[in-house]
Amino acid sequence: MTTEELYKKALELHRRYRGKIQVISKVSFREYNDLAIYYTPGVAAVCGQVYRDKDSVFEYTNRGNLVAVVSDGTRVLGLGDIGPEAAIPVMEGKALLFKLFGGVDAVALCLKTKDPEKIADIVEALEPSFGAINLEDVEKPKCFQITDRLQKSLEIPYWHDDHHGTGLVVLAGLINALKVVDKKLEEAKVAVGGTGAGGMGILRFLMMGGVKGENMLAFNTGGIVYEGRKEGMDRWTEEVAMRTNPRRTRGGLNEALEGADVFITATRPGPWIRRDAIKRMAKDAIVFSLANPIPEIIPEEAKAGGARIVATGRSDYPNQINNVLGFPGVFRGALDVRARKINDKMILAAAYTLAKLAEEKGLDENSIVPKATEPEVGPKVAAAVALAAMESGAARLSIPAEEVEKNTYKLINEHQRIMESVFATATV
Amino acid sequence: MTTEELYKKALELHRRYRGKIQVISKVSFREYNDLAIYYTPGVAAVCGQVYRDKDSVFEYTNRGNLVAVVSDGTRVLGLGDIGPEAAIPVMEGKALLFKLFGGVDAVALCLKTKDPEKIADIVEALEPSFGAINLEDVEKPKCFQITDRLQKSLEIPYWHDDHHGTGLVVLAGLINALKVVDKKLEEAKVAVGGTGAGGMGILRFLMMGGVKGENMLAFNTGGIVYEGRKEGMDRWTEEVAMRTNPRRTRGGLNEALEGADVFITATRPGPWIRRDAIKRMAKDAIVFSLANPIPEIIPEEAKAGGARIVATGRSDYPNQINNVLGFPGVFRGALDVRARKINDKMILAAAYTLAKLAEEKGLDENSIVPKATEPEVGPKVAAAVALAAMESGAARLSIPAEEVEKNTYKLINEHQRIMESVFATATV
Repeated sequence: MTTEELYKKALELHRRYRGKIQVISKVSFREYNDLAIYYTPGVAAVCGQVYRDKDSVFEYTNRGNLVAVVSDGTRVLGLGDIGPEAAIPVMEGKALLFKLFGGVDAVALCLKTKDPEKIADIVEALEPSFGAINLEDVEKPKCFQITDRLQKSLEIPYWHDDHHGTGLVVLAGLINALKVVDKKLEEAKVAVGGTGAGGMGILRFLMMGGVKGENMLAFNTGGIVYEGRKEGMDRWTEEVAMRTNPRRTRGGLNEALEGADVFITATRPGPWIRRDAIKRMAKDAIVFSLANPIPEIIPEEAKAGGARIVATGRSDYPNQINNVLGFPGVFRGALDVRARKINDKMILAAAYTLAKLAEEKGLDENSIVPKATEPEVGPKVAAAVALAAMESGAARLSIPAEEVEKNTYKLINEHQRIMESVFATATV
Repeated sequence: MTTEELYKKALELHRRYRGKIQVISKVSFREYNDLAIYYTPGVAAVCGQVYRDKDSVFEYTNRGNLVAVVSDGTRVLGLGDIGPEAAIPVMEGKALLFKLFGGVDAVALCLKTKDPEKIADIVEALEPSFGAINLEDVEKPKCFQITDRLQKSLEIPYWHDDHHGTGLVVLAGLINALKVVDKKLEEAKVAVGGTGAGGMGILRFLMMGGVKGENMLAFNTGGIVYEGRKEGMDRWTEEVAMRTNPRRTRGGLNEALEGADVFITATRPGPWIRRDAIKRMAKDAIVFSLANPIPEIIPEEAKAGGARIVATGRSDYPNQINNVLGFPGVFRGALDVRARKINDKMILAAAYTLAKLAEEKGLDENSIVPKATEPEVGPKVAAAVALAAMESGAARLSIPAEEVEKNTYKLINEHQRIMESVFATATV
């Protein structure tokens, strides 16, 4: 399918179904008397139970499986500030993937305010209704301000998918890509394009995973980030300047790629990078071009520039470095052990699990990460995250990791069965 | 089942299922390539479409079928201020009923703030994600402040179920109860207990339906409301004083019921009213005792006091005056014609439709309203509401009322089929 055909089909199917998610009953409501159980007067007993023991809300309601996908629509995919209404298709898509691959219920909450303090206020007010929060597609630096505040204030897991999710999946992919070309994380020279939520997550989790700050540099629309740069800096970019690029290299894309082993870019939709830039990289170059919907450099062009391994965010090319490999399992694991946070150890555990899953199937240039639809991805990530949560003290419950894995399979399969019956009998 | 057994079963089933609603896919997601349709890159085309034509969000996402059930948990059932967590079982129950009887998707949003301005701010910010808003179980006078503001500011239907929903269903029930005892709305003497959201809705919609203000009086914890009363008044109660009780009768329950044809009470859970009070009423007395979970006067006691017709909010007695007869169909109709508001004409149309449905089945002392599980309730109410919306200029779309009725049946039946398959194959 060409991109044009794909877009046409996406429009047609979104219109046919009027979106992608719906709410249904979890209980067997068969007769009039069930009203007395699930509504009044029976429900009063459940309210009383939760009133006396607030934590039992996780046992008696769906809160413990419910995630809010929150956005203000200011940086949707690579489309920019398209507003809350136009952001809904992405957030509904996210909710769909949460359920398909993690058995997690999620709803899209796109907000008519761009004020980071108000967004954080709203999420804090919504906390009692949700098991976890996923922030999405909010422009920088607001997304960092919101994240800094909510990571402290919330008592439920908080996740900024553009940051944490991208960092997680890129680390997993890079671990394997370097194995394929027989290079080491600790020695790899890495250039990162973009210092938005994605770029920052990549820089952070690659360093946490073993890439040396002294071997990294980042660039953005103002060129390479270096200590002392004045234009377009904020406190988050200052931190990047301090931790990377010790020789204070200056310049733009070309200078950043000079001799680099790895180029990872999460900027604006392309194609705007050409093969000439890639030619400056070291032998066996690795290029992750992650802008959506169209990568900064299309894989054919990157290969023509000498790249040995190319990854994108798209499902119609090999090596899809897409956050869907991460968030469904991460949230599943965090929710199952009722974690207070999603901490770095949990994220690293997820990245290593993803990398291992691909390795077990056999690595090559076109297989550095699992496919999102491989059934073990969600369950294995969930188990690893739950274990890391328990070991790091973030978990409120103690559950064997195998139980979490089994539960994930069970939830995914239950949803699968529902879908099969819906579409076996569908009238549309 | 005794109340105790009912409570035990409610606790057991809520715990078994962990709540009552879940999110599932609306689309047929069968293979890896579907990621490219429903997520990236395909979803970008849908975002672009909605960005260019904001109203098309109703065609391409689930927004047009999604309702937020919003509460701060300050006045839940008759349990009082039990907080947002403990309110979730009720709001999830509401969401379940929305789907079962109206094919409407709803989510429970219980907020950790009691500030009416903040609650209204949050709802306004959430507007782009929802097709309509249902406020629920917020204490007075905050609920009136929030309603006054949101009815003006929102461009989607807003509904305060404790107020509008109660008024609607009580009017329907009273129309039929008076027929059974052969009295007229225009002549009936009506005493209303409670001037909270429910009492105010009852006063308002009964007057709108034909009961004369001069034949009504209201009382609350400060006694009968009269013009000039000083204690416990606010601007909403002042309005009641101006429109009812022209002789400025004073006193409490007993004085209010003296010679009344109808007594409708929506106050705090009982039982706290005895037969002696009912004995003061006129012959063929009608008593609607609507507190949940336990009515102010239990039906056996009211009958012993001489009441000929007794209605409660409970499903385990005849004549269940429960809002579930109203809101699912009202929202279905409003959503289907994409109404800007739920105006009084739409509410009256719903009340008359409910009354007519019961009348067609044959009225008697124990059958003044339909049962919530009668399959035509939602579809007929939806059609009437849609028609009234179109006739009153509140509708953005023009659709034959029969189409709305058919669509409601279709959505309810689809959900029913899903449920049957879920519980045919359930592993729990």
